[in-house]
Amino acid sequence: MIRRVKVAIIGAGTAGLTALKTVSRFTDDFVVIDPGPDGTTSARSGCMPSKALITAAHEYHKRHFLPELGISHAHNLHIESREVMKRIRQLRERFSQGPVRAIEKLEERFIRGRACFESAEQIRVGDILIQAEKVIVAVGSSPELSAEWASFSGVMTTDQFFDLEKLPASLAVIGLGSAGLEIAQALSRLGVQVVAFEQEDWLGGIYDPDIQYWAREYFSSEYMICSGQSVRVDTEAGGFSVGSGKERYRVEKVLVTGGRRTALSAMNFAVTGLPMTASGVPIFDPETLQVGDSGIFIAGDAGQKEMKMHHAADEGRIAGFNAAGPDGVKRYQRRVPLSITFTDPQIARFGLRYDQLNLSETAIGSADFGFQNRALIMGEHRGLVRLYADRVSRKLTGGEMLVPRAEHFAFELATCIHNGMTVDEMVWLPFYHPTMEEGLRSALYNLGEELGGVLPEHFLPEI
Amino acid sequence: MIRRVKVAIIGAGTAGLTALKTVSRFTDDFVVIDPGPDGTTSARSGCMPSKALITAAHEYHKRHFLPELGISHAHNLHIESREVMKRIRQLRERFSQGPVRAIEKLEERFIRGRACFESAEQIRVGDILIQAEKVIVAVGSSPELSAEWASFSGVMTTDQFFDLEKLPASLAVIGLGSAGLEIAQALSRLGVQVVAFEQEDWLGGIYDPDIQYWAREYFSSEYMICSGQSVRVDTEAGGFSVGSGKERYRVEKVLVTGGRRTALSAMNFAVTGLPMTASGVPIFDPETLQVGDSGIFIAGDAGQKEMKMHHAADEGRIAGFNAAGPDGVKRYQRRVPLSITFTDPQIARFGLRYDQLNLSETAIGSADFGFQNRALIMGEHRGLVRLYADRVSRKLTGGEMLVPRAEHFAFELATCIHNGMTVDEMVWLPFYHPTMEEGLRSALYNLGEELGGVLPEHFLPEI
Repeated sequence: MIRRVKVAIIGAGTAGLTALKTVSRFTDDFVVIDPGPDGTTSARSGCMPSKALITAAHEYHKRHFLPELGISHAHNLHIESREVMKRIRQLRERFSQGPVRAIEKLEERFIRGRACFESAEQIRVGDILIQAEKVIVAVGSSPELSAEWASFSGVMTTDQFFDLEKLPASLAVIGLGSAGLEIAQALSRLGVQVVAFEQEDWLGGIYDPDIQYWAREYFSSEYMICSGQSVRVDTEAGGFSVGSGKERYRVEKVLVTGGRRTALSAMNFAVTGLPMTASGVPIFDPETLQVGDSGIFIAGDAGQKEMKMHHAADEGRIAGFNAAGPDGVKRYQRRVPLSITFTDPQIARFGLRYDQLNLSETAIGSADFGFQNRALIMGEHRGLVRLYADRVSRKLTGGEMLVPRAEHFAFELATCIHNGMTVDEMVWLPFYHPTMEEGLRSALYNLGEELGGVLPEHFLPEI
Repeated sequence: MIRRVKVAIIGAGTAGLTALKTVSRFTDDFVVIDPGPDGTTSARSGCMPSKALITAAHEYHKRHFLPELGISHAHNLHIESREVMKRIRQLRERFSQGPVRAIEKLEERFIRGRACFESAEQIRVGDILIQAEKVIVAVGSSPELSAEWASFSGVMTTDQFFDLEKLPASLAVIGLGSAGLEIAQALSRLGVQVVAFEQEDWLGGIYDPDIQYWAREYFSSEYMICSGQSVRVDTEAGGFSVGSGKERYRVEKVLVTGGRRTALSAMNFAVTGLPMTASGVPIFDPETLQVGDSGIFIAGDAGQKEMKMHHAADEGRIAGFNAAGPDGVKRYQRRVPLSITFTDPQIARFGLRYDQLNLSETAIGSADFGFQNRALIMGEHRGLVRLYADRVSRKLTGGEMLVPRAEHFAFELATCIHNGMTVDEMVWLPFYHPTMEEGLRSALYNLGEELGGVLPEHFLPEI
C-alpha cells in the first residue's frame, strides 16, 4: 500500500504539532506520524515535571526562613515522598492532554508507528509506504545513556525518573547541565542525599566566569559536586558505587542527565543519499531548516542543536511555512536568545553569551543581590547580575545572572535588546519601588559607570 | 539671624534627598531642613513595612497549598504575632539608615525643624530665618484622619500601625485603596478578623471594570468588604463599633487608610502671595514643578498628586535641575505610568488607564490565568490580564491585571509601551517555556484577534 501526500510530518511533539498547525493553514493533504507515547518532551520528561518537583522542593526549603518571619513549628513540616511524585505524574498527564486531543482530531491523517526513510520522498511506517512531496522531520531526541549503564536497573534518565513511586534515599546525578542542576538541587532540598558529577570543571550552560564561580559556590553549599574527572558506575548490594578514581559514593539510584541524542539516527537517513555528518545527522540550513535542495526539513530537537521549547515551536512554524507555504523556502527572523535554569536562585542568560563577546569593545556592569532591599524582605537576597553593553553604541548586548526571579528579568532585558535600547535609555524605564527590578537598575548604573560619560543616574531627557 | 543660601530644600524624604543629590552636582550653597523622624515615607510607613507584613502573610497562607505538594504537618504552622511585628520594625530601621547617613554627612548644611514661609524667598525654622534664591518644597504628606477619630486611642493610620507590639484580634480597615487592600488581606491571612469599608462602591486604584469585578470577588472571599456607605466609628468597651447604618461590627482596632494630606498646608504658604487652590495647595506647573514664575518648586507627595516612590524621586531630580541646574527651568520626560498593589494576586496597571481610553479606537484582549500551566504548577493559577491596543497603529497602549507576578509583567509591558511596540511585534519576544509570561502571550493572541488582520500567532517575520 502506497499513500501519497503533499506533506508528511514525522513526530507529534512540540515541533511537529506546531508544524501541523502551520501546514494545515495551507493544505489538508498531509499525514502526521508518531510512535507514542503522546505528549511533548516538555510535558512528559522535561520542563513541566521538573518544575513541579522544584515547586515542592523550594516550598519545603522555605521552612528555614519561616521562623524569621514569625511563623513557628516549621520544623514539623514533612515530605511525603509518594505524594510528591504522584502530583508530578498527575500534572504530566494533564499537560499531555493538549497533544492527545490534537492527534485524535487528525483521525485518518494520523499514523501510529516509527517512520524510516526508504528514499528522499518515501517513508515506511510498518507496512505503510508514504510518498510525500515534503517531509518535516520533528522526531525529537532522547537522553543519551551508554549500553552498559542502560543495563543497570536503577540507572535512569529523565525519561524514567518521573515514573518513580517515591524518592530514593540517595542519588548520584551525572551531568550538571540545566536539567542536572535543577533536579540535583530539588532532590537535595527534598531530603535525598545527592552527589553530583560533572566531567568538565564547569557547570553546564553558564558562560560568564563570575556567574560560574557564584553558582558553583552556591550550589556546592547545598549538595556535593565532584567535577573534572570521568565517572564510573558499579553495581553494589542495594545500589551503586559511583565516583572517579578512589573517591566513591554509595547511592541507591543514579540519574544520568548528560546530552540528548536525536531520534533521527534510527531513521535510516543514509538511504536518501543526502549529505550527513559523521554521526549520522543530516546537514541542513539552520535558517531554512531544509536539507540541501531536497523536500526534507528538520525541526526541533531532532536537529541536534541547543533547543528550548519555544525554539522547537518556532522551527515547527518555519518548517511548516517552508514545506507548505505559498512562497517557497525562505529565511525567518529568530527571537533574542534566552535561556533559564529554574534553580534557586535561578540562572538566566539573554542576548550575546560571554564567549561571544568582543571583550575589548564591551563594558560589563554588575549588581550583588545580597544588598537588594525587596529581596531582603522576601528572604531571597542572594546572587549576582552581570550585564554587557557595546562601548560605542552604548546598547545592551546581553547578560547572565544567578538571582531570584531571573526568569522575569531575562525576559525584560531580552525585550530591551529586541528594541535596541541603550543603557542610558533603560534607566528611564519605570523601575517601581520596592521591586527586585531595582536591583537590575543598580547593575545598569554600574554599567553606566563602566561605559563612562554622563552617568545614567544623572541623565534626564528633556521633552 | 539670617542665613543666605542659593537653594533651600525643605524635607529629607525621597523627593528631598533626590533633589539634594541633584542640587549638590551644581552648588554647595544649600541647606536641607527636616523635622524628623529621619527616613522616607516609603521606609517608615509605606512600601517597605507593608511588604514585610505581606511576606509573612503570604508565606503563612501557603500552608493551605503545601499538602497538595506532598508537604505534611502544615496545619501545625503558627503565627507568632510579636515576632511578625518585630521583624517589620527591624527592617524599617535598616531601610532608614540610608537617609540617616545622608543627613549626617550634611553637617551644618542640615537644619532640624519645621519650616514655614515668611515670604516667597524667606523661610523660618524656629529662630533661624533663611533667605533662599530657590526653594524646593518636598515636605511630603501624612495620612488623613478626622479630629474625632484621631482622639480615639486605637484608631490608627499607617503612621502608627507598624509600631504595634502585636497584631490585634480584630480590625476594621477603613479605605480600600492600594494600602488598604494590601494590609486588609495580609492581616486577614495572619489570623486577624478583618472587616473592610470602602465608601465608594469601587476598590481604589482599579480602573478596568473587569479587573474591578474580579478583584472584589476574589478579596471578598478572604475578608468582609462593606461598601457604598459612609462609616461611623463609636468607642465601646475594649474596642470599637464600626459600620454604616444598622450593620455594625465590633473590632479591637481601627486602621484608617484613606487619603493623604500634604504637609504644605501647615507652612503658611499664603504669605508668599503666590496662587493657591481653595484647599491651600500652591498651584504649580506639573511638568516643571515651578510655582508661577517664583523660585519655589514643589516635588513629591507635597504636591498632592497620585505619587509613587519613583515619581517622588523623579520630581526631586526635576526640581533639583530646575532650581540649581545651568539651563534654567525646563520640562522633562516622565516615565511610562506604572502602578502596583502587592496583594495576592497582585494588581498592576501600566500605560493608559481604562478611563483614559477612547473605547471606539481601542481593542481589548484578555487572558484568564486560571488556565495558565506554570501558575497551575505553582498553585497560583488565578486572575485576569486585560491589555489595550490602538486599533489603527496596533500599538499596545496600556492594561490592567490581577495576577501573580504582576509586578514583573507590568514592568515588561511598560517597557513595550516605552518602545512603541505593536502587538504583532510583541508576540515575537522570547516567551520562554514554562513561564507565566506565556499567559501574557495568550492575552496578546486574544488582543490580536480583536484587532483583526493576520493573527499574531501566524505572523512570521522574514529576515
